[in-house]
Amino acid sequence: MSSANRIEKIRDILSQKNIDALIISNEKNMYYFTEFSGGLKLLIPVDGECVLFVHAVNYEAANEIARNVRVNLIRVGEKAEAKILDEIARYRFKSIGFDRIDAREYLKIKGISGDIRVECVEDAIWSLRKIKDEREISLISRAADLTRRGMERAFEVVKPGIREYEVAAEIEYEMRRSGSSGIAFDTIVCSGSESAFPHGGLGEREIKEGDFVVIDIGAKYHGYCADMTRTVITGKPSERQKNIYETVKEAQRLAISKIMSGVRAREIDEAARKYIANKGYGEYFVHSLGHGVGLDVHEPPTIGPLSEDIISPGNVITIEPGIYIHRFGGVRLEDTILILKEKITRLTKLRLEENPIQ
Amino acid sequence: MSSANRIEKIRDILSQKNIDALIISNEKNMYYFTEFSGGLKLLIPVDGECVLFVHAVNYEAANEIARNVRVNLIRVGEKAEAKILDEIARYRFKSIGFDRIDAREYLKIKGISGDIRVECVEDAIWSLRKIKDEREISLISRAADLTRRGMERAFEVVKPGIREYEVAAEIEYEMRRSGSSGIAFDTIVCSGSESAFPHGGLGEREIKEGDFVVIDIGAKYHGYCADMTRTVITGKPSERQKNIYETVKEAQRLAISKIMSGVRAREIDEAARKYIANKGYGEYFVHSLGHGVGLDVHEPPTIGPLSEDIISPGNVITIEPGIYIHRFGGVRLEDTILILKEKITRLTKLRLEENPIQ
Repeated sequence: MSSANRIEKIRDILSQKNIDALIISNEKNMYYFTEFSGGLKLLIPVDGECVLFVHAVNYEAANEIARNVRVNLIRVGEKAEAKILDEIARYRFKSIGFDRIDAREYLKIKGISGDIRVECVEDAIWSLRKIKDEREISLISRAADLTRRGMERAFEVVKPGIREYEVAAEIEYEMRRSGSSGIAFDTIVCSGSESAFPHGGLGEREIKEGDFVVIDIGAKYHGYCADMTRTVITGKPSERQKNIYETVKEAQRLAISKIMSGVRAREIDEAARKYIANKGYGEYFVHSLGHGVGLDVHEPPTIGPLSEDIISPGNVITIEPGIYIHRFGGVRLEDTILILKEKITRLTKLRLEENPIQ
Repeated sequence: MSSANRIEKIRDILSQKNIDALIISNEKNMYYFTEFSGGLKLLIPVDGECVLFVHAVNYEAANEIARNVRVNLIRVGEKAEAKILDEIARYRFKSIGFDRIDAREYLKIKGISGDIRVECVEDAIWSLRKIKDEREISLISRAADLTRRGMERAFEVVKPGIREYEVAAEIEYEMRRSGSSGIAFDTIVCSGSESAFPHGGLGEREIKEGDFVVIDIGAKYHGYCADMTRTVITGKPSERQKNIYETVKEAQRLAISKIMSGVRAREIDEAARKYIANKGYGEYFVHSLGHGVGLDVHEPPTIGPLSEDIISPGNVITIEPGIYIHRFGGVRLEDTILILKEKITRLTKLRLEENPIQ
């Protein structure tokens, strides 16, 4: 699906909803429809030309790269917000959709005319973005492969005496020089009792013998993300550590075995959550099982107990159960998984058997 | 100034504005008042306890790290937005300030009671955040020092044959293993004709003899950012390249010489802009001269033609003139500068004379 097709599709949805135009503020959405990062606002009218508003600093780049739009220059010294609202007012739209606008903007748009209908259509955009096309799948696969290389590097360097940020440095360096365009999120390397904080601590702790070390990383490639977690242990695991690790591993396996086109996302979450609860660790699994991955590292579909999502071909999701015991430590295992019509594929191709805990 | 003092100060401002409570959604603002990253919303009533709403995934970390607040847990399976609004409704506030809320939230808060006054007080928060205290200055200084190390590494590796992303890998690795907690923004290494795009291209170009190479980087340290740009040339500069480089260099020197407490930010911008225009490059300086740096890498005060800011002791700002000629190349030079009562200090301590163009 080309970016031009994406615009056609969103226009169809707008028409069905009787909305005259869409104003996009979210930079990932702008990229999705124009293949350009660095726009200020994107206007997609149901009829007529799309307009990308761009500051002078990105004007030449936008002219060269952005597709499907006329580029509207905001000069140095011009007030961007006022100019954009003036332009939009001139169209005399009766209804406007938006992906995300703040309260100030909302009140200004309503101020154009008391009768104007202003409606959030973020879900409609997600209904497109959730289904990855071939090119997107190939970029996410490449990001996942770069992530795997980072994880392999982590396995080489994690040992007692190294600090968490030093491990992060090695991981990021490996991914970057292998061609990653950056990291999808702040690298998490958290060890010992800090591994019980799912999002990590300060990252300055020195890794010690017998630590759990949670390593949660993601490379980015041409705007697309991957996401992967492994937990290693430095030294011989205790019985309790083994038990926790094996519980998470089996919960992940069970959840992954549930994934197929048509299944409810919450049922996948439930499979892992029930297993962990039955093993007595229910209160220690303190987050959703997973999330979609694409231009954002956390995006729909949500794989959690409240999710209304149904798994569909083209979804790319993570499955990441975890058990976190305060003052003891934590384990999380996470893979990025592609759903196709008849099968699923793990994109983060690193078998758990290669994990140093074994 | 401790984070507790910050809360006292913002409460004073709220009282003056006759606002009963502040709802904070911006994560940097939450960090500023609580020293914790990972909150969902922060409620600061003028009277009574502050409340930080936190998902279960960050609950234990919040209890350990967050200051000045009671931590309110959102359990897995609870609807966060609804719960927070319910709690807030119970206070029966007559007026609520916010830093940034989206239109949907705004309408819901208004829905609590038609009479409730809802007001943006982002500027009041910025009036505090713009003035850095001693601890903040020391963290930004450390980030700037790590940034300098990254730049020195860039100077070592930039040469014909290396790709832009490989240079970025070396820079980020150097900063990270020296103790940086991450990058303040996506590293820019753009060369040749792509150096005319101020925000860079894809980052995959191979650097060639005679290229301008714009290197715009920033380390992060304990949440605080630094920002620095140098432009190097691979090989002997042409007369045109020399002329452009010297113009930017002199524009930066002139602008920096204008900085002092009490001066208008727009006058600093004007000094550089006029000089560049007089040299015939006015149309090629396509962005503001600079910006504040702190928890965000781009924050108030703005150093641009429309700025209403007055420079004050405790401000940390960048000065970054540039000239970008489409299909030819670009030059930008940028430093992070601290304003004190009687003097200013360049925090990115790398003299331009150490820049390989010389």
